[in-house]
Amino acid sequence: MSGKFDPNFTQHVIDTMGPNVTPRNRQIFTALFKHLHDFTREVELTPEEWMAGVKMLNQTGQISDSRRNEMHRLSDIVGLESLVTEIANHVSAENAAPTSSAILGPFWSPNAPWRELGGSIIQDDAPGGLVTLMHGTVTDMSTGKPIPNVVVDIWQASSNGKYDFQDPENQSDNNLRGKFRTNSEGKYYFYCLRPTAYSLPVDGPAGTLLKLLDRHPMRPAHIHLMITHDDYKSVITQIYPKDDPWLETDTVFAVKDDLVVDFVPTDKDPKAVRDMELNIILAPNNIHEISKPVSVRV
Amino acid sequence: MSGKFDPNFTQHVIDTMGPNVTPRNRQIFTALFKHLHDFTREVELTPEEWMAGVKMLNQTGQISDSRRNEMHRLSDIVGLESLVTEIANHVSAENAAPTSSAILGPFWSPNAPWRELGGSIIQDDAPGGLVTLMHGTVTDMSTGKPIPNVVVDIWQASSNGKYDFQDPENQSDNNLRGKFRTNSEGKYYFYCLRPTAYSLPVDGPAGTLLKLLDRHPMRPAHIHLMITHDDYKSVITQIYPKDDPWLETDTVFAVKDDLVVDFVPTDKDPKAVRDMELNIILAPNNIHEISKPVSVRV
Repeated sequence: MSGKFDPNFTQHVIDTMGPNVTPRNRQIFTALFKHLHDFTREVELTPEEWMAGVKMLNQTGQISDSRRNEMHRLSDIVGLESLVTEIANHVSAENAAPTSSAILGPFWSPNAPWRELGGSIIQDDAPGGLVTLMHGTVTDMSTGKPIPNVVVDIWQASSNGKYDFQDPENQSDNNLRGKFRTNSEGKYYFYCLRPTAYSLPVDGPAGTLLKLLDRHPMRPAHIHLMITHDDYKSVITQIYPKDDPWLETDTVFAVKDDLVVDFVPTDKDPKAVRDMELNIILAPNNIHEISKPVSVRV
Repeated sequence: MSGKFDPNFTQHVIDTMGPNVTPRNRQIFTALFKHLHDFTREVELTPEEWMAGVKMLNQTGQISDSRRNEMHRLSDIVGLESLVTEIANHVSAENAAPTSSAILGPFWSPNAPWRELGGSIIQDDAPGGLVTLMHGTVTDMSTGKPIPNVVVDIWQASSNGKYDFQDPENQSDNNLRGKFRTNSEGKYYFYCLRPTAYSLPVDGPAGTLLKLLDRHPMRPAHIHLMITHDDYKSVITQIYPKDDPWLETDTVFAVKDDLVVDFVPTDKDPKAVRDMELNIILAPNNIHEISKPVSVRV
């Protein structure tokens, strides 16, 4: 295919790599150059199309700053973060699986405060927000036993679809963020909001790309979770209400079946109007892994 | 291969494209998503490696401005511009070929002044520069006949390796730039410098990438040419002195055999110490093209 172009070009580019390239970089760049060149030849990319791509990528960097990572977003909408997340969390085991991972996204903060079990992450008014008691048990994938002292780090957007640092007029620092520890029975429980679906910002190159792809910019409503314990593989994930209309077409492709949950109306808790149970399964660090060779097309 | 990952993921991302995507964009993005995902799965790209790429691309945009296009440079050092140039200028004919194309690069200016045949593009002192009489005939690939009124637009770096707008302290606007027209015999001739090899700027992400690849940042000495005539396919190209040490490993992969020329010492011309002949062949616009189907791997 496309054999009419110089058949030695790509190998020549690969061969210019010097002897001091690390084995991993040599593997990555060899594959990257092959795929980038094969793509270019297959579609017979024109100089104008190539230059449009160069321009869009420059603009993507230029609109990014400490609060906005547009390149991260651009790679999300083409599925890249979801894919590296799947690869990183691939666990091959025979009869069990840990809770699925989903992308981290650009809104995690290392500064989320520790909060007491039974506390709330809601610091500020959220018009229309539905207060939810979220709770569950964290268990060991191998033994099925509950795990105490697991850190459950949670963050979510407010009812206007914005995270604290996107919305300083309405939200105080660390609104809708918090870290909890499971108790001696492996349980956690706290108050949060039923999440709200929102649009990615479309005023930058990611919005331009979505328009070219004739796609909507919506993420289904979700709550982010980072679940960690020294003896277990970490799980970074998101959960989604089962009645969300964007589950099938999430613009960053992060929905998996076991991450879809039910926010059940309740009148038993004076502090909440919804009850949501999420049990979490963690894989021990020493879990037996099968079939994980590194494969490179050469 | 890599069948352990979700086999439907890439097709799902492709299928989210809406009905209003243009056929060409659908072709481009379908191939792009496949190659990007295949690359990611083949090397099992880690989240840290992906994020390092995101960061490097953001920095590439951020260091770019009206005088510096770092994304253009980054795509040059992975061979992309050279490849799209080859694809765009591919002419299939049985017994002849036009002068090869080479990349435009980021230093062409639309404002180069018209100059008379026999004039010089050297406006400012160039320490160590070797003044060269460059001359030749432009001919028709089909008939072999000379072509009058061809525009030969030329630009080059000075003896310090810098173009006019990179070097305002030493060079006036349009130094080492000029447009000429071939005479009634299809001939052009003017004075320029024997070109000087130079390093790409390595203080940005392109330099970082070259270091990762254990590659040098050198371009062989070259003169840029853009040769145009309404009845012929344009040729954008570069020519290189045959004794340049970087011909084989040009960091942007733009050297082709017929673009290597000889700067011959001369004492016949009081204005020049080198004589260089470059004859140029242009393909008529209506040249018969064979085997140019668009092929996409589906």
